[in-house]
Amino acid sequence: LNVEIITIGNEVISGHIVDRNATFLADAVSAEGARVTRIVSAGDEVGAIATVLREALARADLLVVTGGLGATPDDLTVKAASQALGRSIILHTAYLETLRAKFKKFNLTITTSDEQIAHLPEGAELLPNPIGLCGFRIDEKGKAIFFFPGVHREVKRLAEVALLPFIRERLQGEREVVRSALLKVFGPTEAQIKETVQTAIGAGVELASLLSFPEIHLRVTARGIDPQEVAARMRQTEDAIAGSLGVYLFGRGDEVMEGVVGKLLVAKDATIAVAESCTGGLISHRITEIAGSSRYFLRGVVAYGNQAKEELLGVSSALLEKYGPVSKETAEEMARGVRASSGTSIGIATTGIAGPSGGTTETPVGRVFIALIAESFREVKQYDFFGDRHQVKLMASEVALDRVRRYLLGIAS
Amino acid sequence: LNVEIITIGNEVISGHIVDRNATFLADAVSAEGARVTRIVSAGDEVGAIATVLREALARADLLVVTGGLGATPDDLTVKAASQALGRSIILHTAYLETLRAKFKKFNLTITTSDEQIAHLPEGAELLPNPIGLCGFRIDEKGKAIFFFPGVHREVKRLAEVALLPFIRERLQGEREVVRSALLKVFGPTEAQIKETVQTAIGAGVELASLLSFPEIHLRVTARGIDPQEVAARMRQTEDAIAGSLGVYLFGRGDEVMEGVVGKLLVAKDATIAVAESCTGGLISHRITEIAGSSRYFLRGVVAYGNQAKEELLGVSSALLEKYGPVSKETAEEMARGVRASSGTSIGIATTGIAGPSGGTTETPVGRVFIALIAESFREVKQYDFFGDRHQVKLMASEVALDRVRRYLLGIAS
Repeated sequence: LNVEIITIGNEVISGHIVDRNATFLADAVSAEGARVTRIVSAGDEVGAIATVLREALARADLLVVTGGLGATPDDLTVKAASQALGRSIILHTAYLETLRAKFKKFNLTITTSDEQIAHLPEGAELLPNPIGLCGFRIDEKGKAIFFFPGVHREVKRLAEVALLPFIRERLQGEREVVRSALLKVFGPTEAQIKETVQTAIGAGVELASLLSFPEIHLRVTARGIDPQEVAARMRQTEDAIAGSLGVYLFGRGDEVMEGVVGKLLVAKDATIAVAESCTGGLISHRITEIAGSSRYFLRGVVAYGNQAKEELLGVSSALLEKYGPVSKETAEEMARGVRASSGTSIGIATTGIAGPSGGTTETPVGRVFIALIAESFREVKQYDFFGDRHQVKLMASEVALDRVRRYLLGIAS
Repeated sequence: LNVEIITIGNEVISGHIVDRNATFLADAVSAEGARVTRIVSAGDEVGAIATVLREALARADLLVVTGGLGATPDDLTVKAASQALGRSIILHTAYLETLRAKFKKFNLTITTSDEQIAHLPEGAELLPNPIGLCGFRIDEKGKAIFFFPGVHREVKRLAEVALLPFIRERLQGEREVVRSALLKVFGPTEAQIKETVQTAIGAGVELASLLSFPEIHLRVTARGIDPQEVAARMRQTEDAIAGSLGVYLFGRGDEVMEGVVGKLLVAKDATIAVAESCTGGLISHRITEIAGSSRYFLRGVVAYGNQAKEELLGVSSALLEKYGPVSKETAEEMARGVRASSGTSIGIATTGIAGPSGGTTETPVGRVFIALIAESFREVKQYDFFGDRHQVKLMASEVALDRVRRYLLGIAS
């Protein structure tokens, strides 16, 4: 079942709003096992909408159209549908009665343009919607076209009560079962990941990778007829992918890096303090995005200047003078200092050049030192990150959190 | 100039990601005065992409295509373009050298599939991109096709350096002149803003509002025949809007709140230190997103626990005991403490309940105290923010920065 989604509105094609309707419908339709083959957006113009409808009808089995059903002059979907399908526009008397009743209920006077809403293409089947405007369905040459208003919550409602049940019924018997999972990876490049997991992807399983800088997310989808077989295949694939990625796979589904670290800290009954220079507070910010982080996060220090490094972290001025603020030695002392003063099990520190200026030949922009100090444990590493100021900060914060994760998993080097 | 935007990727048509590229490009292209006539999304399939390209080329004057340019097997845009345009795929040696140099710089091994990236349709003109993959442009029968990678930041960059200047040049001398401005507002609701600026919007000027939580951005567009008249009308409208919004208008165009605050700090030769509890490092992180912030940002302290508030900020345990950590008094002492120890002109502090738990009847989730202390200046305010943990943090950080802005403008209450 090939589905095309068509969203109508000048606000969409001029970029004034994000097209949440298209994303929602695509996800919901795909999850039912139908295949979305195209998403098209057109403006409020009869000719443009009619063309899009005609073209889509020639390709797909089912169309979902949102927007342009209201009472204002730029609501032109009905006119366009009438043109594209060669059907006249007639008054849907039952719909008119519903509209009148609704207006009366809210003590509103119904105008002629409001009544215009009840004029639909001939043969349209009304799709009742208690929370707003009705949608309608037209069957054309064995293909179904669903027309919904553009308001997001009305699209969701109408999809749930009319569209998805229709798709379910159409796919009955031949109905595919779809299972999908999201695996989150940090470390290797997209190409490396794809090469690594290649053999883990069996027949009937699709893999899509989504770049979510600095992470890569893998969407794994399995399809089939027998629910148990699909579930088993999915499990098997997930296990195989997890096995091939090893420690680089840090989370699944809704999990985020700082949440994974938080769970590990709780599980190990550990606490953490953070000393940041180039990351500027981002690591503390990320850790504290997690509800309940006050249980393990005790303090953060953003020591931008040397004075702050000395006063708040106890880094000696002699050491700063000898090695400079961006050095292995300073990073280590910062981590030691914040751990000692807070009494946490883990101290983590970053110092580096986020850019765009401040780099030298010896210490270029992107150079970052990250130190992790714990009981009988010391790790200080040098990194050269690529990108602009924001990317360097984000990458450094991600690596720092990942080092904590690895340490807590007992696999830090 | 009719423009079609084409976004490629299974993640788009299956609804796994929101298509931010399409929205951004549509907005940016419209702002230049070109007309976006259609947005089309297709999956990672050579035939489908080629069809979409062929169809769009028959209709529009300019195409912008995003996605499918990477090194993995589902990056198929080059193959599809070659098919649709009847051009062979050839190695772009200069691009290959750039890629090799980049990989070498970061000590990465370049694979054969990475090198595949440098294979482009014949006649493609490379669009350099220092922050990621290059894009390219193909001129076909007097029409231009821009191909960009799918990563949002890279799309933005390539649009700014290659696409928008191209459109500007193409529209030079065209009959219609378009001027547009982006005005950024923080404080009032969307409805309040629309009501306030209503009379400032004259004939031939369009206003669109974009919600960018917690800010509202206004896109003002003026069109006309005479460049000078349009520019004058635009200036007039901007002035009128600015006049009606007053201090709530904090920035224009690319400006961000933390950048505006940074500029004011530099202009007033002032420095700042930040003490955060509920915002968890977000204020320091935002301030340090601005290049050159080390000039005025000296230190940040994230004092989650009471011990940190006492040790790092000098808040007395008696005061903490008497008023509690979430109180006007604690906020004030935190701001005083961080200012005194760092010797900055301004000290700012937040303490509150970000949620979702930790709230009580007396101190509900969303309650935040924000204090600003400077020479002969003291401001401590109580806020009740609505939303989830992330929104409360974001809102509190925005208000804190906005209070600093107002103080520096000499209009703090």
